[in-house]
Amino acid sequence: MNIPEKEPHLEKHFKASEFIRDVVIGMSDGLTVPFALAAGLSGSVSGTNLVVIAGVAEIAAGSIAMGLGGYLAARTDREHYENERKREQREISEVPDREKEEVAEILKQWGLKEPNITSAVESISDNPDNWVDFMLKHELGLEKPQPQPQRARNSSLTIGLSYIIGGFIPLLPYIFISRAQTALITSVIATIIALFIFGYIKGRYTGYRPFRSAGQTTLVGGVAAGIAFMVAKIIS
Amino acid sequence: MNIPEKEPHLEKHFKASEFIRDVVIGMSDGLTVPFALAAGLSGSVSGTNLVVIAGVAEIAAGSIAMGLGGYLAARTDREHYENERKREQREISEVPDREKEEVAEILKQWGLKEPNITSAVESISDNPDNWVDFMLKHELGLEKPQPQPQRARNSSLTIGLSYIIGGFIPLLPYIFISRAQTALITSVIATIIALFIFGYIKGRYTGYRPFRSAGQTTLVGGVAAGIAFMVAKIIS
Repeated sequence: MNIPEKEPHLEKHFKASEFIRDVVIGMSDGLTVPFALAAGLSGSVSGTNLVVIAGVAEIAAGSIAMGLGGYLAARTDREHYENERKREQREISEVPDREKEEVAEILKQWGLKEPNITSAVESISDNPDNWVDFMLKHELGLEKPQPQPQRARNSSLTIGLSYIIGGFIPLLPYIFISRAQTALITSVIATIIALFIFGYIKGRYTGYRPFRSAGQTTLVGGVAAGIAFMVAKIIS
Repeated sequence: MNIPEKEPHLEKHFKASEFIRDVVIGMSDGLTVPFALAAGLSGSVSGTNLVVIAGVAEIAAGSIAMGLGGYLAARTDREHYENERKREQREISEVPDREKEEVAEILKQWGLKEPNITSAVESISDNPDNWVDFMLKHELGLEKPQPQPQRARNSSLTIGLSYIIGGFIPLLPYIFISRAQTALITSVIATIIALFIFGYIKGRYTGYRPFRSAGQTTLVGGVAAGIAFMVAKIIS
């Protein structure tokens, strides 16, 4: 963090892995629901044409809900942070003593003792910017949003597009194979493999055990598809 | 935080609002994609029977992806936290000096200065439990998971069930009205109103401006439905 000469490198590394993480999140989610919906419908409709129409409509709806929804939520988070920042800035200039007491309370919870607390409060409140950051993070639990707004936009776009690409993996067999049952079996095999691979990569990029993540992603997709199939059979 | 005599009350308040928050999150998400899918399909299929089958299959798939997926993710988070906790415990007993340097580094970033840092490090590392909590939170950025595992399970169940209830709001008109166009118009009006109401409540329970949240939730649902409608029309 305190090594400015290395920042360009770190920055690049951060961007690359953020991008891959977004791709994997969008793709593994995009695989799940379109897969389950297509599998669910395949037992209840004749021919694969309707499965494809419903699948494509789901991909359109899901990618917009995820991409646009995520983008608007990130924008709201950023504005919320800016507003809270202004409010804290006002508070430290209007009621500095009360704000110092709040810093002292936080330090006390972490196990600091007097007279350390008083002098630590003084060094933190010495620099108003630093003081505001401290209050936002430790009093309100707000993390700094990404420095550039376009990164949030790119991230949402990547997730939305990856959802679309992921969603077409289970759908392709229904597009190219006209017999519903053959298409279903091909789609199930292809998607289970894809869910496992993306679950594995997702685990690697989100810091968890990759095989466990692979198993969970596959399980959720499989259970969702199985239940959608049963439910559609019952009501059709 | 430090008012133990009031804890039972706070606990109750926390539980009630957590529950409502889960209901609103599940319901506003459940409204969006089933709504968009049903609206999308209604322009491309004759009769409302297929819209209902596809909608119900989507609700089954989406609620499982959200509920089971959320539950497994929360369980993984909890285990990840426990593992990291054990690792930190090992580190503070095996390499206490290096761990103390890490505490000092964090305090320095917050603006504390020597000799405060050294004595603050001593008081934090005085209590090993406190020291481990400090490292988990401030070195690794990990928040303590919910104290009881069943709360994570209940939360996922609430979200999943609310998704199902939310999903049936746009579907009901297609179940009771056989003419696709009339069902579509009724569904659009009912869902836009429901999205607005749930977006508003969601904003209140997640700490943002309610009318803004209402507008965004409605916008995402409306855009998703509009594009799903167009896409389904084009390919059918």
